[in-house]
Amino acid sequence: MIHTDICIIGAGPVGLFAVFEAGLLKMRCHLIDALPVVGGQLAEIYPQKPIYDIPGAPAIIAEDLVNNLMKQIEEFKPGFTLGERVEALEKQDDGSYIVRTNEGTDVHCQVVVIAAGLGSFEPRKPAVEQLEYFEGKGVHYMVKKPEQFRGRNVVLAGGGDSALDWTIFLADIASRVTLVHRGDTFRGAPDSAEKVYDLAGKGKIDLILQAQVNKLGGNGVLKEVSILGNDKSITTIPTDDFIPLFGLSPKLGPIADWNLGVEKSAVIVDTFDYSTNVERIYAIGDINTYPGKLKLILCGFHEAAIMMQSAFKYVYPDQKLSFKYTTVNGVNPF
Amino acid sequence: MIHTDICIIGAGPVGLFAVFEAGLLKMRCHLIDALPVVGGQLAEIYPQKPIYDIPGAPAIIAEDLVNNLMKQIEEFKPGFTLGERVEALEKQDDGSYIVRTNEGTDVHCQVVVIAAGLGSFEPRKPAVEQLEYFEGKGVHYMVKKPEQFRGRNVVLAGGGDSALDWTIFLADIASRVTLVHRGDTFRGAPDSAEKVYDLAGKGKIDLILQAQVNKLGGNGVLKEVSILGNDKSITTIPTDDFIPLFGLSPKLGPIADWNLGVEKSAVIVDTFDYSTNVERIYAIGDINTYPGKLKLILCGFHEAAIMMQSAFKYVYPDQKLSFKYTTVNGVNPF
Repeated sequence: MIHTDICIIGAGPVGLFAVFEAGLLKMRCHLIDALPVVGGQLAEIYPQKPIYDIPGAPAIIAEDLVNNLMKQIEEFKPGFTLGERVEALEKQDDGSYIVRTNEGTDVHCQVVVIAAGLGSFEPRKPAVEQLEYFEGKGVHYMVKKPEQFRGRNVVLAGGGDSALDWTIFLADIASRVTLVHRGDTFRGAPDSAEKVYDLAGKGKIDLILQAQVNKLGGNGVLKEVSILGNDKSITTIPTDDFIPLFGLSPKLGPIADWNLGVEKSAVIVDTFDYSTNVERIYAIGDINTYPGKLKLILCGFHEAAIMMQSAFKYVYPDQKLSFKYTTVNGVNPF
Repeated sequence: MIHTDICIIGAGPVGLFAVFEAGLLKMRCHLIDALPVVGGQLAEIYPQKPIYDIPGAPAIIAEDLVNNLMKQIEEFKPGFTLGERVEALEKQDDGSYIVRTNEGTDVHCQVVVIAAGLGSFEPRKPAVEQLEYFEGKGVHYMVKKPEQFRGRNVVLAGGGDSALDWTIFLADIASRVTLVHRGDTFRGAPDSAEKVYDLAGKGKIDLILQAQVNKLGGNGVLKEVSILGNDKSITTIPTDDFIPLFGLSPKLGPIADWNLGVEKSAVIVDTFDYSTNVERIYAIGDINTYPGKLKLILCGFHEAAIMMQSAFKYVYPDQKLSFKYTTVNGVNPF
């Protein structure tokens, strides 16, 4: 049994920063994440992409932000259980909780913070013959390391921002990039769509509109995709990698069974302190919802700071919280 | 007449970041600040101090944070009117506003954002004979550039965090530091008080408790301070600089006359969008108040992001706001 003050479910940027705000108030944290690494979506979906809207960090690569946050919380020595999924929550007689993972790890805590981002999410899979067979053999639902596509022949599918974005990005890396899209206009940003049209116009990529990938072929590894046009034509093109980008389908997972108020796969919180309707359970970052909610990392940081002030009473019921500025007091490590 | 979409009163960190969030929504900003430089308290009160709680920036010198924010908003080309104080606000028939400064600069805008930090604040001056005479001749109410005290004989007065903090900091820089405090315990952080006792114990500073500076002397420039003990004893010590640190007294200034809801020198806002009770006027950062308010820079950043989403309707009444992530769309400059 692991004992801590605050158990944080989710080790994305908001969960990580919550450790800092807890630490300033002398509260210890343990984080659990289903992913094998910290960073959440930043590590899983776009580690190499720059983020522009972290205040004071004009253009920071997602991975660097995660590293900076890890450095920022180092002094507060958080515990981590990575690669395990939270399965159950058991309320104790004294009001505290035990959080249990799918591998039987138990974390005893006074307060539970859900910072689970999109929740346990899955890529949306298009209806393509043999798609699942070629998973791990040439089919990728997200681009984690763009470098792995260097010099390869890549087919992407989709009409949203991810598809446009990665088409542009991989155009410089892959030996050949083909984007296949069912419609003839894109849902993604007009700027990005223009860049894609421009690359196609210059012959730097192949753009196949009004068509969809309907079948994969190969012998143990992916060798070709079959493309069905809206006009019923069929084209087969050789490929090393197929990257269908049709978004992620968020799922709350076991959290959905904890009697929390939920709306559209997000946990309803009170903006006074980002508490849920269940005492001692808070939700911060992309997983929560309230009127006017913006799913921005910087908003999650604010929510973490406010939330920890409220959680203090459960960890130190006999103490009065006295608020100190780090510019005045510095950071006092555990 | 300067024309802009959003007029931001206050060019501190929160006012600066608000320009970025406005820019993402294609709204232009003009900032007005009574100080001659941008940065607000970061520039005025503690430019050389590290801030520890900016998310993703483990220990950033206040001045560097200001520079980073300026870099982040550069592409959105904000206008600045510095060294002028906002005096008046005139509502126009179409709902827009003209903001006027003490020097007659007029800024026409659709939305006014008050990001004025502590407001127009003044140092609290202790009752010391000749204090005002020696202002600029050895009397300092804040430490802007610690280096200016290198090798000098400095007397500080006060019992709070600033006094403790600067005593510790200047102990390494000044040739001699004396801290005079009326009481015999300190209001500041226990850690800092301990460090001060420790420095005094080792003879690195002089600590004079239960006493207060009551008179200054010199001939054109400060030469000595007279110290009156609680036991009525009088000591005169030679000094180059006297730094009384008794806090700042915040004043709302002319904002107080704008019919805004105000509580304890702060502007009351609705946390849904950080709007005040007057349409088209918002307040963000240290100047606002709401249940659970924390006066943290990172909270002001969040408030700026949320607030601009709400302001959009006044700048683009005929458009629907579509929210885009910078990781997907980048930043499109004006």
